[in-house]
Amino acid sequence: MAHPVVELTSEASWNLIEDKFSPYGKETLAKLVAFLQDEILPAVKLAHAQIPKDPVQRWKTVVPVIEELKVKARKLGLWNLFLSKAHYPEHGVPLSNVEYAVMAEILGRGGHMASEAVNCSAPDTGNMEVLARYGSPEQQQKWLIPLLNGEIRSSFSMTERFVSSSDARNIRTSIKREGDEIVINGHKWWISGAGDPRTKLHLVMGKSDPENSNKYRQQSVVIVPADAPGVKVIRPMEVFGYDDAPEGHCEVIYDNVRVPLSNLVLGWGRGFEIIQGRLGPGRIHHCMRSIGAASAALDLMISRVTNPTRKTFDKYLYEHGTVIADIAKSRAEIESSRLLVLSAALQIDKYKAKGALKEIGIAKFVVPAMACGVVDRAMQAYGAEGLSQDQELASMFAQLRTLRLADGPDAVHIQQVGQRELKRAPALAKRAAELEKREAAVLQKAGIKSHL
Amino acid sequence: MAHPVVELTSEASWNLIEDKFSPYGKETLAKLVAFLQDEILPAVKLAHAQIPKDPVQRWKTVVPVIEELKVKARKLGLWNLFLSKAHYPEHGVPLSNVEYAVMAEILGRGGHMASEAVNCSAPDTGNMEVLARYGSPEQQQKWLIPLLNGEIRSSFSMTERFVSSSDARNIRTSIKREGDEIVINGHKWWISGAGDPRTKLHLVMGKSDPENSNKYRQQSVVIVPADAPGVKVIRPMEVFGYDDAPEGHCEVIYDNVRVPLSNLVLGWGRGFEIIQGRLGPGRIHHCMRSIGAASAALDLMISRVTNPTRKTFDKYLYEHGTVIADIAKSRAEIESSRLLVLSAALQIDKYKAKGALKEIGIAKFVVPAMACGVVDRAMQAYGAEGLSQDQELASMFAQLRTLRLADGPDAVHIQQVGQRELKRAPALAKRAAELEKREAAVLQKAGIKSHL
Amino acid sequence: MAHPVVELTSEASWNLIEDKFSPYGKETLAKLVAFLQDEILPAVKLAHAQIPKDPVQRWKTVVPVIEELKVKARKLGLWNLFLSKAHYPEHGVPLSNVEYAVMAEILGRGGHMASEAVNCSAPDTGNMEVLARYGSPEQQQKWLIPLLNGEIRSSFSMTERFVSSSDARNIRTSIKREGDEIVINGHKWWISGAGDPRTKLHLVMGKSDPENSNKYRQQSVVIVPADAPGVKVIRPMEVFGYDDAPEGHCEVIYDNVRVPLSNLVLGWGRGFEIIQGRLGPGRIHHCMRSIGAASAALDLMISRVTNPTRKTFDKYLYEHGTVIADIAKSRAEIESSRLLVLSAALQIDKYKAKGALKEIGIAKFVVPAMACGVVDRAMQAYGAEGLSQDQELASMFAQLRTLRLADGPDAVHIQQVGQRELKRAPALAKRAAELEKREAAVLQKAGIKSHL
Amino acid sequence: MAHPVVELTSEASWNLIEDKFSPYGKETLAKLVAFLQDEILPAVKLAHAQIPKDPVQRWKTVVPVIEELKVKARKLGLWNLFLSKAHYPEHGVPLSNVEYAVMAEILGRGGHMASEAVNCSAPDTGNMEVLARYGSPEQQQKWLIPLLNGEIRSSFSMTERFVSSSDARNIRTSIKREGDEIVINGHKWWISGAGDPRTKLHLVMGKSDPENSNKYRQQSVVIVPADAPGVKVIRPMEVFGYDDAPEGHCEVIYDNVRVPLSNLVLGWGRGFEIIQGRLGPGRIHHCMRSIGAASAALDLMISRVTNPTRKTFDKYLYEHGTVIADIAKSRAEIESSRLLVLSAALQIDKYKAKGALKEIGIAKFVVPAMACGVVDRAMQAYGAEGLSQDQELASMFAQLRTLRLADGPDAVHIQQVGQRELKRAPALAKRAAELEKREAAVLQKAGIKSHL
Repeated sequence: MAHPVVELTSEASWNLIEDKFSPYGKETLAKLVAFLQDEILPAVKLAHAQIPKDPVQRWKTVVPVIEELKVKARKLGLWNLFLSKAHYPEHGVPLSNVEYAVMAEILGRGGHMASEAVNCSAPDTGNMEVLARYGSPEQQQKWLIPLLNGEIRSSFSMTERFVSSSDARNIRTSIKREGDEIVINGHKWWISGAGDPRTKLHLVMGKSDPENSNKYRQQSVVIVPADAPGVKVIRPMEVFGYDDAPEGHCEVIYDNVRVPLSNLVLGWGRGFEIIQGRLGPGRIHHCMRSIGAASAALDLMISRVTNPTRKTFDKYLYEHGTVIADIAKSRAEIESSRLLVLSAALQIDKYKAKGALKEIGIAKFVVPAMACGVVDRAMQAYGAEGLSQDQELASMFAQLRTLRLADGPDAVHIQQVGQRELKRAPALAKRAAELEKREAAVLQKAGIKSHL
Repeated sequence: MAHPVVELTSEASWNLIEDKFSPYGKETLAKLVAFLQDEILPAVKLAHAQIPKDPVQRWKTVVPVIEELKVKARKLGLWNLFLSKAHYPEHGVPLSNVEYAVMAEILGRGGHMASEAVNCSAPDTGNMEVLARYGSPEQQQKWLIPLLNGEIRSSFSMTERFVSSSDARNIRTSIKREGDEIVINGHKWWISGAGDPRTKLHLVMGKSDPENSNKYRQQSVVIVPADAPGVKVIRPMEVFGYDDAPEGHCEVIYDNVRVPLSNLVLGWGRGFEIIQGRLGPGRIHHCMRSIGAASAALDLMISRVTNPTRKTFDKYLYEHGTVIADIAKSRAEIESSRLLVLSAALQIDKYKAKGALKEIGIAKFVVPAMACGVVDRAMQAYGAEGLSQDQELASMFAQLRTLRLADGPDAVHIQQVGQRELKRAPALAKRAAELEKREAAVLQKAGIKSHL
Repeated sequence: MAHPVVELTSEASWNLIEDKFSPYGKETLAKLVAFLQDEILPAVKLAHAQIPKDPVQRWKTVVPVIEELKVKARKLGLWNLFLSKAHYPEHGVPLSNVEYAVMAEILGRGGHMASEAVNCSAPDTGNMEVLARYGSPEQQQKWLIPLLNGEIRSSFSMTERFVSSSDARNIRTSIKREGDEIVINGHKWWISGAGDPRTKLHLVMGKSDPENSNKYRQQSVVIVPADAPGVKVIRPMEVFGYDDAPEGHCEVIYDNVRVPLSNLVLGWGRGFEIIQGRLGPGRIHHCMRSIGAASAALDLMISRVTNPTRKTFDKYLYEHGTVIADIAKSRAEIESSRLLVLSAALQIDKYKAKGALKEIGIAKFVVPAMACGVVDRAMQAYGAEGLSQDQELASMFAQLRTLRLADGPDAVHIQQVGQRELKRAPALAKRAAELEKREAAVLQKAGIKSHL
Repeated sequence: MAHPVVELTSEASWNLIEDKFSPYGKETLAKLVAFLQDEILPAVKLAHAQIPKDPVQRWKTVVPVIEELKVKARKLGLWNLFLSKAHYPEHGVPLSNVEYAVMAEILGRGGHMASEAVNCSAPDTGNMEVLARYGSPEQQQKWLIPLLNGEIRSSFSMTERFVSSSDARNIRTSIKREGDEIVINGHKWWISGAGDPRTKLHLVMGKSDPENSNKYRQQSVVIVPADAPGVKVIRPMEVFGYDDAPEGHCEVIYDNVRVPLSNLVLGWGRGFEIIQGRLGPGRIHHCMRSIGAASAALDLMISRVTNPTRKTFDKYLYEHGTVIADIAKSRAEIESSRLLVLSAALQIDKYKAKGALKEIGIAKFVVPAMACGVVDRAMQAYGAEGLSQDQELASMFAQLRTLRLADGPDAVHIQQVGQRELKRAPALAKRAAELEKREAAVLQKAGIKSHL
């Protein structure tokens, strides 16, 4: 277990994919593991302490230790690891999806903060991808470069209050051209990052052509500066009791917000195209971070149940009830989940996200639910402390629970995978028909009359 | 569905127990249902609004609307319903456990606040039972009467930091006699109510005789005034980000706290006896409130999935995926759980808590986990909103999740029920032996030689 | 635990329903418990031994010991217990559904054979109900009386090969009037009892009016003598590897079978009405027998894991892994399932099957699946022996597994219960609207502006 | 999906391991896929038909079509694929465990018969491994060569009646030297293949030195000719009603059986060593066959629910209830299970079975249970037909169910994996201590006093 990646992930998985890593990939991974253990994890408590409890001040805070970590990370070349050179030749790093997937698992052990320290945190990642792929040179200069540099942050403004926006066609925010300007009116919520003082832009999705007979051409995406008049951050939404300040997930009203025409991304009516391009690999990254979180939770559970100061009735906790079985089950679930995601990542590397929809869908509905379950068992092992601010478990659970809804609720992915399986029916019918024919011939030749 | 109880619970359950209700029980239940719907539920949002967000002020607040509800409830005779006259002739109300169990389910639909409004909220309930059963006349006069009147609140101080106090023998707080005084030193946490400005006493469990060879005679319980010098409320513990102010679940240090000898409850070395008497019916009440919460969550889920403004892809939410199956499953789980608890309550009415340990144990490990599952499905139906402060679901989940740990984690109850089943082994062996004998005779008579 | 019913079922359930038993009901139950233990169970092995292994002879066998048991049972008044006098005043016994439900659980401990011994085995039970309710005096004289006397047996012929007859409208068997005769042509399978030499009649469901615009008036039911020309029993269907000889579940072709007009039951086009009346309480009885089977399996499991000759690695089996937890979980599932069925039975007693559809549906999808799970755990405890002919467990499992399909597969009942829950939506919406109004008033009065 | 392996397994898995296949491996796999589809599957019904129903004759049968398939397979080079040249240079084929694992999945689609057709069926496989590794030249000449040629079959005789032999130390069969002979006395059951007329030898495990203080040196393994005097095959054991004739799983008594000294395998007291070497990769092969079976079951399920002749209530079966979700879930479980087994196989290739115990253990407790679940869903989709002899599903289930017990019950593997995880505790404690130190330093440097 001397290998640092194996120690944090698994030898058996590593065997299966080691030969998919370039020397650069291996070196970067090793640096990331060291950075996580030596720098990020030791800073977690300090970061929490640097966020004031005051309900106003906590939203005006730039957490100093995170900014320090960012400087260190960038120096080490641990920066924008999510952006694959294969797809983004100009700004990307030479890492495949499989390679980054393993790194995302490592980052998942450090929570939000770890991803932020290496400039790989959502929603900035997806927004950078959008701007790198679809942004005009001016848009890239003004917004993409500072994002890539970690100087500013951003929001993606899609989800709306009062409608079920998991069907994106339900979106009601209006985006209208008026002369040289675009006017935006809408009521959004769950806008991650909108509370952060460093957030300088919102990518806003809305309806620019609601009468278009093609329901997938009605939408456009516009860049809205966070400080534009009419952008009203109403309140932070809480997840369980967490507000996730200073980043937050905010309710935002766009009240007659006006931006120049040049803030339109890609073109009128191309909003759907943009959000679809934005979602593929991001889902895998969420999944891998979830696996990192689940692994960390299992490690915590093992530590607790083997702790001699925690004996009850003269036995270690692991000697009670189903603890060992729970640990074995958790280990098995983590291993199989990791393999699912790695195989999906490899599929993306081979066939792009479009050619990996089944694999992505499976990972999306299996992994966050699995991780919630593992964390839940760990919480149980810790007793009430496991639910409290003294362990990361409860906040982990809350974050993982949101992933069963973000980027499409479980049910959507389950349905999509099931439907995709049903498409195999004609091929199966053909194979069955051939088999029956052969079978009949075999029986006839043997002189047996099937009664069927 | 005209019957108000049937509307909120279930006709089939009601049929099974209606004849166990006295006229007084029925009348009280009807009043309670009306009070919940007309007074308590409409006040929930106001109560939340009356708790300041400021991290200091929120702990100094007496929520006005709850105090108003208490006045109304008492006038209506909806007061101290948990305290059964059968066991507490002086102070109790003429309600059986079965009767109160149904009322606890009704209260469970209104959260903490509902129980508080009728002076039935933990930990006061258990503390009143302790004082009514074991308190001296002076103790009763000074502490029990104001508690029964809802004028003050109280804490039960047992769980300790740094040890696994689910094995109560691990408790380390020291309780020593020094002359006419008792000196208490200890480090507790998860002390519910300790944050509340109305809390005037802590019942503190600690070790008074740590060398006693009988490990169940080492403990004593002492009344500690909340404002005694040396009582230090360190901080509120959070549960999934909720601090539950102003009540709270606090970390408390007792630093050389001195109280008069007369504050000892029942006698030296009788702490274990006290906590055991305290736990039986209370577990059932938690379970029934959980069922009320789960029922309310299922109602919310049904409302959401049938809401025409929430259609996606031109279908109601209930037309998608496994929603209908999830609802059916939730209904079945709620029904069977309610029946389990009611049968346990009846068992207590017949044979006291001691004669109902198996039934209580089953309810304890089945019901809170079931309720967590139902609420989780409802959250999923609500999307991100279901995890937020705009619905009660996430805070419900957090409270229910604690019940899988409070009064003994699931595993303890599972183990206890399993062990109790194993005790049937000798009787089963005897029955099996008799059967084999008869079987052999039957075979022999028929001239058949068994090869076994 | 001296009480014989409590010993075999559960004290807590018994408490809840004891007062629903008449003195006759209690006396009959006590006799049944004794008969099961003293007569039925000791005869099970002999009955198996009396069925020849020869693939032809085993279908020509009347098992002697069962016939002997029937004589004894009838003498004891343990006869036709399923037929409630309340619904069948002429032929019925004075037992309610709740009373018979408990007896069905007791019978479930003895497998098919126990029910047969007291003339309470399917499909005869449902057929007797049909003939008692809908049969003409001549039909009753000729077929019902010998069935009630246990002199003959019968089949119910509905399920068809090549179509999904869980939608009864898919049935294709043709029933045509030709002069004074009815001509039947069809291809059925899974016709229970059709292999039994004692079976003298089939109640055949088919289409008599396939063009009727009312799809529920196209069907009729006809009595077909088992020995009528054209009745061809093709082969026994196997369940897993069991053929359940001599009773069997057979494939049957009706090839131009002719019966007199007087063999029509109830009237032309009333087939649907007949099968619907036939299904209600029968489902509950299946469920209660399943609970008896699960209870017996759990008893077997407890016996095994406490057996000192079965120790491994110097420990009792119960000291390994999750055995105790599995036992506790099984106990909890059995208890809650029993309560569900008893509450459904009581609902039927109060409101007929029509008024208990939700309760019946819940029991139907919960109980057989639960029983399969409990038996599966018991099999695991027995190792390979648990899957073999040396224990009843594997054949129990096979029978219970069929109940997840018989009388409608699980999915149908889940869907039906879910849909029934959705019907509460308007009432919930109304209650929610009232609550919002009150809530708004309360907030306004307090001067709080809700931001919603 | 033109690739034949991808069509039967999965593109994403294939991507992950394709580069672990040699050209020979790929070619062999392609031939095997074709042989399965063109020859094996069409012969399944005929093979069943060639086994007589008569309870005596069915045990005297050599199924002609299987012998024909064996000839064809051998000609194609599809022979003894399980025996890896890497471990068995003399007799093995140049295939790794990963390569054979994929082939075992393919074979799993054809049941027992497919493995037999390519001379890869248990228990012969394990016995050939034992003889190849530990057999004397004479033993190899007499028994191994004909086994490798598929001319004879064999049994492995370990499990005993009346004791729990999952703890092999409980074995009671006595193996004693008397002069130049070895005398064997014992009572075994579940001896696979003992019913087969082609079986010529039993490898019998017993106690040769029961007083040895080393409990793992008390056992020896001896070759017993199937026709030696005193070898009494008592009866076939049934699994869910199936006797699996002619192979069978039989009860066998060794009654003073005498064999020459030269029939001792490896040496006195080395029985444990032999069975341990026998078990590793075999478990993986069982798992992969299970995945093939589960995949075939899922294909059958998809065929049924998309079959237009199976509509109910005017809808395809897949439009009802949770069918699509069940399919999606099954697909996900099959994918993740396959990846688990492949990663275990690769681990074996890299570090031998000893270095892959965790991975083997995980696969062993996850995969058969998973496959039972998938088959169970498929059975449900087929209605009663799914439980019958007209579909392979029920017999598949029975076989898969035995795998949750064979080679150690689930609980043993769960426990072993859990214990293995617990061994990580010291490393985790060390890492945690380092983290705390760094954390403290970070907080101190920032001037924050942690309250912990």
